[in-house]
Amino acid sequence: MFHHSKELQYEVRVEEPDPEFAKMLQQAIGGVEGEMRVALQYMFQAFAVPKKKHQFRTMLMETAAEELGHIEMLATAVAKNLEGASEKDRDRAREDPIIATMMDSGQPRQALSAGLHAMPVDSNGVPFSGNYVVASGNMAADMYANVMAESTGRLLATRLWEMTDDPGMKDMLSYLIARDTMHQNQWRVVLEECFEEPMPIPGSFPQEEENQKYNYAFMSTFCGESEDPEQPWTQGESPDGKGEFSFLSEQPGGGKPDLEKVIEEMYNEVN
Amino acid sequence: MFHHSKELQYEVRVEEPDPEFAKMLQQAIGGVEGEMRVALQYMFQAFAVPKKKHQFRTMLMETAAEELGHIEMLATAVAKNLEGASEKDRDRAREDPIIATMMDSGQPRQALSAGLHAMPVDSNGVPFSGNYVVASGNMAADMYANVMAESTGRLLATRLWEMTDDPGMKDMLSYLIARDTMHQNQWRVVLEECFEEPMPIPGSFPQEEENQKYNYAFMSTFCGESEDPEQPWTQGESPDGKGEFSFLSEQPGGGKPDLEKVIEEMYNEVN
Amino acid sequence: MFHHSKELQYEVRVEEPDPEFAKMLQQAIGGVEGEMRVALQYMFQAFAVPKKKHQFRTMLMETAAEELGHIEMLATAVAKNLEGASEKDRDRAREDPIIATMMDSGQPRQALSAGLHAMPVDSNGVPFSGNYVVASGNMAADMYANVMAESTGRLLATRLWEMTDDPGMKDMLSYLIARDTMHQNQWRVVLEECFEEPMPIPGSFPQEEENQKYNYAFMSTFCGESEDPEQPWTQGESPDGKGEFSFLSEQPGGGKPDLEKVIEEMYNEVN
Amino acid sequence: MFHHSKELQYEVRVEEPDPEFAKMLQQAIGGVEGEMRVALQYMFQAFAVPKKKHQFRTMLMETAAEELGHIEMLATAVAKNLEGASEKDRDRAREDPIIATMMDSGQPRQALSAGLHAMPVDSNGVPFSGNYVVASGNMAADMYANVMAESTGRLLATRLWEMTDDPGMKDMLSYLIARDTMHQNQWRVVLEECFEEPMPIPGSFPQEEENQKYNYAFMSTFCGESEDPEQPWTQGESPDGKGEFSFLSEQPGGGKPDLEKVIEEMYNEVN
Amino acid sequence: MFHHSKELQYEVRVEEPDPEFAKMLQQAIGGVEGEMRVALQYMFQAFAVPKKKHQFRTMLMETAAEELGHIEMLATAVAKNLEGASEKDRDRAREDPIIATMMDSGQPRQALSAGLHAMPVDSNGVPFSGNYVVASGNMAADMYANVMAESTGRLLATRLWEMTDDPGMKDMLSYLIARDTMHQNQWRVVLEECFEEPMPIPGSFPQEEENQKYNYAFMSTFCGESEDPEQPWTQGESPDGKGEFSFLSEQPGGGKPDLEKVIEEMYNEVN
Amino acid sequence: MFHHSKELQYEVRVEEPDPEFAKMLQQAIGGVEGEMRVALQYMFQAFAVPKKKHQFRTMLMETAAEELGHIEMLATAVAKNLEGASEKDRDRAREDPIIATMMDSGQPRQALSAGLHAMPVDSNGVPFSGNYVVASGNMAADMYANVMAESTGRLLATRLWEMTDDPGMKDMLSYLIARDTMHQNQWRVVLEECFEEPMPIPGSFPQEEENQKYNYAFMSTFCGESEDPEQPWTQGESPDGKGEFSFLSEQPGGGKPDLEKVIEEMYNEVN
Repeated sequence: MFHHSKELQYEVRVEEPDPEFAKMLQQAIGGVEGEMRVALQYMFQAFAVPKKKHQFRTMLMETAAEELGHIEMLATAVAKNLEGASEKDRDRAREDPIIATMMDSGQPRQALSAGLHAMPVDSNGVPFSGNYVVASGNMAADMYANVMAESTGRLLATRLWEMTDDPGMKDMLSYLIARDTMHQNQWRVVLEECFEEPMPIPGSFPQEEENQKYNYAFMSTFCGESEDPEQPWTQGESPDGKGEFSFLSEQPGGGKPDLEKVIEEMYNEVN
Repeated sequence: MFHHSKELQYEVRVEEPDPEFAKMLQQAIGGVEGEMRVALQYMFQAFAVPKKKHQFRTMLMETAAEELGHIEMLATAVAKNLEGASEKDRDRAREDPIIATMMDSGQPRQALSAGLHAMPVDSNGVPFSGNYVVASGNMAADMYANVMAESTGRLLATRLWEMTDDPGMKDMLSYLIARDTMHQNQWRVVLEECFEEPMPIPGSFPQEEENQKYNYAFMSTFCGESEDPEQPWTQGESPDGKGEFSFLSEQPGGGKPDLEKVIEEMYNEVN
Repeated sequence: MFHHSKELQYEVRVEEPDPEFAKMLQQAIGGVEGEMRVALQYMFQAFAVPKKKHQFRTMLMETAAEELGHIEMLATAVAKNLEGASEKDRDRAREDPIIATMMDSGQPRQALSAGLHAMPVDSNGVPFSGNYVVASGNMAADMYANVMAESTGRLLATRLWEMTDDPGMKDMLSYLIARDTMHQNQWRVVLEECFEEPMPIPGSFPQEEENQKYNYAFMSTFCGESEDPEQPWTQGESPDGKGEFSFLSEQPGGGKPDLEKVIEEMYNEVN
Repeated sequence: MFHHSKELQYEVRVEEPDPEFAKMLQQAIGGVEGEMRVALQYMFQAFAVPKKKHQFRTMLMETAAEELGHIEMLATAVAKNLEGASEKDRDRAREDPIIATMMDSGQPRQALSAGLHAMPVDSNGVPFSGNYVVASGNMAADMYANVMAESTGRLLATRLWEMTDDPGMKDMLSYLIARDTMHQNQWRVVLEECFEEPMPIPGSFPQEEENQKYNYAFMSTFCGESEDPEQPWTQGESPDGKGEFSFLSEQPGGGKPDLEKVIEEMYNEVN
Repeated sequence: MFHHSKELQYEVRVEEPDPEFAKMLQQAIGGVEGEMRVALQYMFQAFAVPKKKHQFRTMLMETAAEELGHIEMLATAVAKNLEGASEKDRDRAREDPIIATMMDSGQPRQALSAGLHAMPVDSNGVPFSGNYVVASGNMAADMYANVMAESTGRLLATRLWEMTDDPGMKDMLSYLIARDTMHQNQWRVVLEECFEEPMPIPGSFPQEEENQKYNYAFMSTFCGESEDPEQPWTQGESPDGKGEFSFLSEQPGGGKPDLEKVIEEMYNEVN
Repeated sequence: MFHHSKELQYEVRVEEPDPEFAKMLQQAIGGVEGEMRVALQYMFQAFAVPKKKHQFRTMLMETAAEELGHIEMLATAVAKNLEGASEKDRDRAREDPIIATMMDSGQPRQALSAGLHAMPVDSNGVPFSGNYVVASGNMAADMYANVMAESTGRLLATRLWEMTDDPGMKDMLSYLIARDTMHQNQWRVVLEECFEEPMPIPGSFPQEEENQKYNYAFMSTFCGESEDPEQPWTQGESPDGKGEFSFLSEQPGGGKPDLEKVIEEMYNEVN
């Protein structure tokens, strides 16, 4: 179960409110690279762990709760970047520079729907989707999803860091970038230390059942004659240690598709 | 640019049409783990490669074109699993066992909207979304996204392989599973051979700018006293080789959030 | 502005409640081929007509209001197909055959969220989207969108007609199919009578500005040598009367893409 | 910031696994009436509270954290309802009764994408959307949104309670229903005790600026002559205590719409 | 069934076209707080009313038809705010100030897809979703949904009123704000006059079946010792008149989750 | 199956990078009128063609592959319009004019998520949806969908042509406009040459089963007395050659809806 406490996880300071930067920060809240995604992803992965592996459940919950705190930090940052709006003066909201910028920008709902506060949407204004969350039941696959999430998340945070000069915002982002460094390493170490041979994922599938001719061959799909480019992906041992890369100059080909029927009951007509 | 040829990439055979299995296969077409996602992901990644790195552009396009052929194979498989519908006999579509199963199932649009053919939707009937595609401009991040996509993709294909007894379908899936093995290895080898020190991603961010206190510390968020669990993620060298894991028994804490105002221009009211 | 009256537009009778058929009918309410789409499409097209063309505005509004009545008819049909649920008997909802079927089927929200009534979703349970609506500002383009909407709409209605034996439902569908016949013809006659040369749409674009080499040539994208198949689309006059079809055995080709830079400010990395 | 502890908030027991009921429970996780919605809604409302009203921020966070625990309970319930799948026996997954039911049902992704665990989607398989969350910046409006969310949430929970005979599930739902009772009352008491005259919302808008002729009149839109139905909404004092209901037999009418132009730059054509 | 007439419901005048304000108005058309939502919500609620309660069906349809007229008014307002685009002058659309503003703003589809007219999308450009509509089958729950919809709707209209100086737009909004006042009161009066004891919703659930220990207790989820804050939600009679508020200093706790298995058939792997 | 080659299909030149125009071009990639839609639409239509009609399958695949090449061209154009970003200079990304424009505009994800490259989203930032694709199983209906897609597609391309002065962009668009001319004609010729009497679609439905009273009558839904406007849609032969248009001054009327029950098992309550 979950608990809260009254402090933020880390200080959130804004010296110069910047409504455009508020919009940018939304990507780190409700975007595909954002904190809602990782908080829920680690949570749903934790929910699937059986009791005999309680240490993984705990670890996932530890970090899920941490990410919830990041949502709170970022939402506070959004509100502070918008807080400069002046006291109400009838008929002049449009002339308030903060609100005017919101109206000109691509996230007007931040004013219209949220009164200048954070929302569970991305920087384009597109709502968060549950389909961003990866929790496959297979922990190795999930760990790759997590490394990827933290990689695109850190990339996003560094881009945001580039886009602001506000010392408070830079400090907050420097903290979030550091946490992404930790989390990238955290999920990597699980892959390396906890799985003997994780690849190809899922490792429990009997590999002899997969087609043995095409499982370590780079397949060219060039239209025309193609030659082995002699790259690391066409020769040498494969990273999973179970095969040798080779080069296939064309696709195998499996005959023309041969649907037999026009299904009349469906009023299909082809002609 | 793209070309086509008339054959399928690999043979698609269905011995016993199975409308439920057709529904399952939709996940491999339009689902988040499916072929539309990877085809478009590799394509959009290729579109972003500058000319001096043409070998990566080529590699990505090679595999993008291959994945397009997988969509075609799977769409053919869906249609063949539904093709058994009998000749039209007015007033009795409901009694046709294929159509009756479609109606009872969770994918009725396959009959109603597509006349018993494949659709760009997942097995729950949810349409494919462009937001499934990851093409970040940072190749290392993209490679992790690709390993993850092929890991969940292969996991999906093995689950599908479990769910059918049809020799044709098992053979097709055995081919697709093999290709996913290759592609997992292909993206891994790029990470290992083509980047000297890919982590933490993005490697070009000056790491001294990130908060140095929290970048290799596992942070406990337990409500209560917590002890170092002495796991691979709380001690030892980090996988990126740049830090030493440590354990932090509580979150730093950053003071209470302190929004100053109720923004009257927005008719906000708190009370 | 809009008004209502208390009667349905046409009688809705269900002799034998059928919860699976209720689910099917949802496609005709909230699906891409459904009545919400056409009602809103004709409405938004009408909203864009300038006053000097009031007869088109009126025509579009006439039919928009008619389609609203179809939503009401179909919603009534859905409810009647689900109305057989027995009186409440604690602990036994699952044993009620109507509810049990709802639970087994792919539209459980019809019970859980709507208490066995109609919803603005399709038969797969996917919510109606505003992006289904086409109102482009160009009336000829809109008319093609309308013919298409009524074609897929009538196709859907005939498929539904096939799937039921209930005389009441067949009678209601026979009415809706008739209306789709009328509407297909209605939008076609506007194209034929009201535009002198509607194609290519938009007709007001100065056609001499389009590339004159590729505007009436069928372009083969075969990988390999290809020959003119001598089909109606490779020879003869074009339907717009402004060109002669020809056959192009390959794509023109425009040089390799040549992006110059890796944009470092974005922490892009390719390597 | 947030914390977790290892126990569930309340016991989750399943005596007889029921995969269809697992699907139903998804509505209470990722559906519009579900726990993800309320957890995030209360959280984003809390994030917008200024410091001088800290007691509201605290109250909202208290309940947000409680709702996170409900997600965990429900996710555990979903997994337990699916846990009966037998040990793996190659080629026979389809014959496992749990998996077969998943395949036949409308939520196959629960097997294919999540390995028989919970997902952030609703019972129709539609992903959770950030647009379900209401946090308007106006606390009275938000409280109505919360009463509504808890009303449809309790309604959902009672429907689920009806649909199961499992004593463990009934006990868990009885707890969740009780909490919804509390929360309905909690948000109501804020409306009643903390706002002097909350209606019409927003109360801070100068009501003399709204049109004084139409603000307490029920407007008939009948097509035909209509008479005052003499209902509580056409006569008597209005609930906000600021007006007297009246009956208007027709809509005011505001002249025909009169768009002047066909915008040629847009290649609009009306003809 | 539905009818239309040629006039607008209320006059729509724009003195100074303002493309940014057109974008803002879209929120009131296709946004979650907008008129498409309420029109469809009241319609679908009406469709579920049984014949013995015809007065409620009629009332809901009266107001649904009224809201359709509001969509028409707002769509006219959008078009008029964009109508200033100058006559076509080849190669210079970008220099037209209206079009240039559209291009710079966050709603370019209004030019590209709709030729400078209204669309069924919100001010962020996100399409209307059928999942915004609440029609639960339980009228008390629906009435709360309606009060909430009209509260956030009136809030939106007042914010729009603040953002414009155009006398025509202010007059139109003053009318819409007045109608929202009426509708808030209308749905409230149904709750107060037509239900004896509406709370907790649903009132027909046998309340003795809900857990009696937790149904009127405010539950603290603080991490740490917490004390009764002595607020209206921790003491005193509950608004439903059926309980006494109390304070619970911690969550009950229900044991650790105890999933037994790793489901091998799904190729789940934990470790 | 599919192949690629290294050249673009047609030259893509940008003389003056324009980040706003990059945003506009996104509509032609991931928008409802864009190239992803047509590429996938023709592909899924091809996948449904039975072998005896191989010439249609081939034609559809030819053009599907061509449209894939248009995605590549447009993605290259987007990247070139954004490529002007200067070399990285810490703390000043915001001052780079390209990035500053991206931040101010409505598509900030193009910087944040894609590092200034193309994305599978529209110009409003809304992701591509599989539900844009029409492949109904009925070829005549599909051909209308294709004419419509190419009509709105050409309309979009001409609007884009208006919005740029860049000679390279105008040349590329002139090519794409020409291809849309060809494709409009291509799908029209199939309708005219390959179907004897395509209308009403589907032609295979026994037309005597549709209601014979309402299938060629224009139905007025005016509220009030209405007269035959004597327009091409109220008199004269219908375009399908199978009926004579007539005018119906009012809707037929089908009695009041008569739902019998309040379904208690669902805790429905009315009143």
